[in-house]
Amino acid sequence: MKKVMIVGAGAHECGRFEGKPFTEIGRVAVQRALDDAGMEFKDIQGAFCSRVFLPQCSGLKVLTQFGRTGIPVVDIEAACAASGACLRQAYNAIVSGQYDIVLAFGVEKVGRGFLPAPNYAEWQVRMGLCQNPQYWSMNARRHMYDYGTTIEQIAQVAVKNHKYGALNPYAMYRKEMTIDEILNSPMVCDPMTLFMVCAPNEGSAAMILCSEEFAKKYNKSKPVNIAACEHRICKHPLVQVAAQYFYPFDNPPATTEASMAAYEAAGIGPDDVDVAEVQDTDAFCEIEAIEQLGFCEKGEGGRFTEEGATEIDGKIPVNISGGLISNGEPVGASGMRQVFEIVCQLRGNSGARQVEGAKVGLTHVYGADGHCAVVILNC
Amino acid sequence: MKKVMIVGAGAHECGRFEGKPFTEIGRVAVQRALDDAGMEFKDIQGAFCSRVFLPQCSGLKVLTQFGRTGIPVVDIEAACAASGACLRQAYNAIVSGQYDIVLAFGVEKVGRGFLPAPNYAEWQVRMGLCQNPQYWSMNARRHMYDYGTTIEQIAQVAVKNHKYGALNPYAMYRKEMTIDEILNSPMVCDPMTLFMVCAPNEGSAAMILCSEEFAKKYNKSKPVNIAACEHRICKHPLVQVAAQYFYPFDNPPATTEASMAAYEAAGIGPDDVDVAEVQDTDAFCEIEAIEQLGFCEKGEGGRFTEEGATEIDGKIPVNISGGLISNGEPVGASGMRQVFEIVCQLRGNSGARQVEGAKVGLTHVYGADGHCAVVILNC
Repeated sequence: MKKVMIVGAGAHECGRFEGKPFTEIGRVAVQRALDDAGMEFKDIQGAFCSRVFLPQCSGLKVLTQFGRTGIPVVDIEAACAASGACLRQAYNAIVSGQYDIVLAFGVEKVGRGFLPAPNYAEWQVRMGLCQNPQYWSMNARRHMYDYGTTIEQIAQVAVKNHKYGALNPYAMYRKEMTIDEILNSPMVCDPMTLFMVCAPNEGSAAMILCSEEFAKKYNKSKPVNIAACEHRICKHPLVQVAAQYFYPFDNPPATTEASMAAYEAAGIGPDDVDVAEVQDTDAFCEIEAIEQLGFCEKGEGGRFTEEGATEIDGKIPVNISGGLISNGEPVGASGMRQVFEIVCQLRGNSGARQVEGAKVGLTHVYGADGHCAVVILNC
Repeated sequence: MKKVMIVGAGAHECGRFEGKPFTEIGRVAVQRALDDAGMEFKDIQGAFCSRVFLPQCSGLKVLTQFGRTGIPVVDIEAACAASGACLRQAYNAIVSGQYDIVLAFGVEKVGRGFLPAPNYAEWQVRMGLCQNPQYWSMNARRHMYDYGTTIEQIAQVAVKNHKYGALNPYAMYRKEMTIDEILNSPMVCDPMTLFMVCAPNEGSAAMILCSEEFAKKYNKSKPVNIAACEHRICKHPLVQVAAQYFYPFDNPPATTEASMAAYEAAGIGPDDVDVAEVQDTDAFCEIEAIEQLGFCEKGEGGRFTEEGATEIDGKIPVNISGGLISNGEPVGASGMRQVFEIVCQLRGNSGARQVEGAKVGLTHVYGADGHCAVVILNC
């Protein structure tokens, strides 16, 4: 099978940019990816844009600013996993031999008034279980009950992510916080406090993908190989809340399934991963993700975090970008931002946040309706 | 390159179905495609859903009713060409060797209060040029001026499409109309009257795609080959209205580019096409499409239609389903409905509307921001 390389990567900062249209946010990310690749827009043969809350033809609205070259531009949506699904279509378009150079980018602008929670069933809305914090907080409480995970261990995820976020020029929140500040911040949904929860916001990131052959020509920046890109969906009809209690979990969760498929495709295992960006919609979410990705045993995520195994010099550095907790979640672009972080890490370009000798990186996004995408990159 | 076959095709009727959720409309189309293929949902390895005006994760919301098998489901949007783009991703997923059996379906529910016209520039909205009829009516007037096309020739498209729509059990409007009834219906935008214009509405259609090898197993209904599936975008920055007057048209339009690419990929030309479904957002739109697809010379579309060349027994039968004019346009599903019509025609299943001996069929969708998709099927 053809090898697919990322030859250009760029991102717009995450945050809230009042008065700045999504077209400009997206344009900056795409231009930076083109510059990084040493490429002009006319070299691109096809494009995919992930976005969730933006209007139709968002991708084309961004790219029209570079000139209309007639190439197909398709918008992709798969909830919070949209970026992973988008990268996967671009990857496929090269593997299938259709194109040699493809652009995949995510762009998003989520207003503060956000969250109609369109993915929750009516009964959940009536019970007030229709937002992310409620879902994850109930999961957290169950994990604490089943495995003795402590609130301090959960808060430690936020301490870590805010610490690294403070070093990331692309992050929205760039301020270290003590565990007390985090535990004492306003309660959102017990046990999750404000500084443990990510903010839906705005941002964009773009990747230029090439066949291996073309990557020899476009090697201005170090090409990074996409070793696997998998997308799975939770097998339970109710992925939210109730599923945890009413369904016997005889099927592995989507994160486990997607990561197992990705490990198999890449021919590596979780122990081979040097750096990971995982979905930390909130602090507990990261604990569940590292267990399901196989970085530690089921139930051990809290202790694993407390012991520093997910720190920059730990067994498996996780969310050294600051994660969603300090970057926020520009929903349709969030996974692409994670890929951007991993590309920088594998190239050795992450400055103060550089994971020493990182050769294999993983990104994980998990979203509404049980969408999960896992991407493995290596160099 | 791997050959890709359609082994199952199904559709929900087009129309307005108050109180019927899109999940049910989509479910019916998918179930009919599964039945047609003699397949169970668990056989599907990946799925793509095209929709434009529906909420996030629409595809998964439809498919959850069949059981959650964990397969990736991605929503695709490319304005009115969404269905073509969707079919193309499914096609690619098989060509790339990723899957052997893929579902591609479109579903849409557009309310009557519709049309925020999100794809028009602010200056166009201010000038009242922000709806499809205005755009096409200005094009029609220009065509009449340049080529002597008459209003009767344009109305003849609607006469023809309503005539065949009356025979189509899936159509929304199933009533023959005289040319006088059409010309005397309320004026929407001069010269386009009400019965010349398509109505945005609701519907769904689904295709099950297989590699050629798997099509030998799933041959309950006659498999139809996807000979080409191309998607291009208009090269002009202003595809709407003004482009016709202020820009020198030194680039071919998107329909010409997409169809040329499709003809080349399929190794056939416009004269080889036996039956076509083209985008008749309104009556003039079909005239422009048949010229740009190469069925007749530039400027000859009106006369070509008047002479009966696009009738069921003409040189190239066009919109024998009744087209958008009598089916309406369930935006994200409209192109898939066209593909459904062509599959039925190539299988010889179109009853009173059967085009004798049809072996090669073409579908064409054209939409906002200049998206165009052309699919060529043969058997």
